[in-house]
Amino acid sequence: MPKIEVCLSPELLPLFKLEDKIVVVIDVLRASSCMVTGLAHGISEILPVASLEESATYGLMGYITAAERNGLKMEGFDLDNSPFSYMDPVLVDKKICMTTTNGTQAILMASSSRKVIIGTFLNLKTVADYLYIRGLDVVLLCAGWKGQVNAEDTLFAGAVTDALKDSFSLGNDSALLSRDLYRMHQDRMEEFLLDSSHYNRLKRLGINKDIAFCLRKSIYDCLPRLEGNSIVANTPGQ
Amino acid sequence: MPKIEVCLSPELLPLFKLEDKIVVVIDVLRASSCMVTGLAHGISEILPVASLEESATYGLMGYITAAERNGLKMEGFDLDNSPFSYMDPVLVDKKICMTTTNGTQAILMASSSRKVIIGTFLNLKTVADYLYIRGLDVVLLCAGWKGQVNAEDTLFAGAVTDALKDSFSLGNDSALLSRDLYRMHQDRMEEFLLDSSHYNRLKRLGINKDIAFCLRKSIYDCLPRLEGNSIVANTPGQ
Repeated sequence: MPKIEVCLSPELLPLFKLEDKIVVVIDVLRASSCMVTGLAHGISEILPVASLEESATYGLMGYITAAERNGLKMEGFDLDNSPFSYMDPVLVDKKICMTTTNGTQAILMASSSRKVIIGTFLNLKTVADYLYIRGLDVVLLCAGWKGQVNAEDTLFAGAVTDALKDSFSLGNDSALLSRDLYRMHQDRMEEFLLDSSHYNRLKRLGINKDIAFCLRKSIYDCLPRLEGNSIVANTPGQ
Repeated sequence: MPKIEVCLSPELLPLFKLEDKIVVVIDVLRASSCMVTGLAHGISEILPVASLEESATYGLMGYITAAERNGLKMEGFDLDNSPFSYMDPVLVDKKICMTTTNGTQAILMASSSRKVIIGTFLNLKTVADYLYIRGLDVVLLCAGWKGQVNAEDTLFAGAVTDALKDSFSLGNDSALLSRDLYRMHQDRMEEFLLDSSHYNRLKRLGINKDIAFCLRKSIYDCLPRLEGNSIVANTPGQ
């Protein structure tokens, strides 16, 4: 039986063996939710980069640029970190270069694994179905907040672990903890997150609408995966 | 209102500011449970060291030596890592030098804080009362297992967070997650841990009796604290 491990912070990733495993990168609020939304709405490619400078350079090469730090859009870039911005029809078939505080960094850290996919509540069922069909060992990598564990990414890791409970074993205690938290709070996630630090940080920024959207479950049948250096939508059989 | 932060693994400790905070070091199975038990039964001092070599050197200087790696007693040392071994009347007024896989390392990492105390289910009420009276910011440091988050230390961090809910604020999401896990499982902790990796590792070693003992709540009114390089029992007013 394949196993699921949960890595609650990118700071803990060096403890995990990634070779031959599928890594699901999770940054619910909001980088991975933006990626799923954008690819579901026809964006052709999202290139994650670590620094603002790299993003600016790709901007000169024709990419649409997205840059967020500390929850805020950085001046001089095209897009913010709200999933609603990624639904704009002018972005169809466009390439985006994205840098965020946590999510894009986590993707870059996971790139030594067999495969990197992007998971959010928005594509929960698609992610779980894909992992079930592949049947390989999985690491669910929570992007967290500047190294700290956060509630919403842990909750999503628990949602995946719970969905796969009959066909995967628990690979570490973080998988057990996440699964039980999700079971406890699955029907009142927003209420639970009301107490959380990241939620409150974002709420102060006035993006309640984004948060409510990012907690909607399985509304997109889209599986972003890392191909080369870019995130693209999965195509059947891959 | 002072705040409680939970650090789920020593690997995450560099993200925390420790100055002016009280750090509670948690290694439920079994180093901190041994310390509380031993000091409650009259051991005068426990010196935590990182390596087997240091422990052996202190042995030559008259210390009783305790050494555990991967859950097993190391050959050539006096004591194992079972709390029952620390109840032996021959140890009254003796000094112990201890090295373990996780717990003693965590103590050494926390020593830059204002104060280091040792928390376990065995002295839960004493720890919570002490933190309440002091009213300073607190970091609950889970020793985990070789850097990985573990279920039993997280559960104890949640027990402390829950006990102090009316007088401390949640300093990070790990405090929220731990508290909710404890609330969910407080009346059936052993059943919950049945699924956990560390529990199963120790169970394979045949120490079910130790595990059941380490989950007993508030049976000792003893507060081990780091004084210089050693762990001693707290005396009133300190």
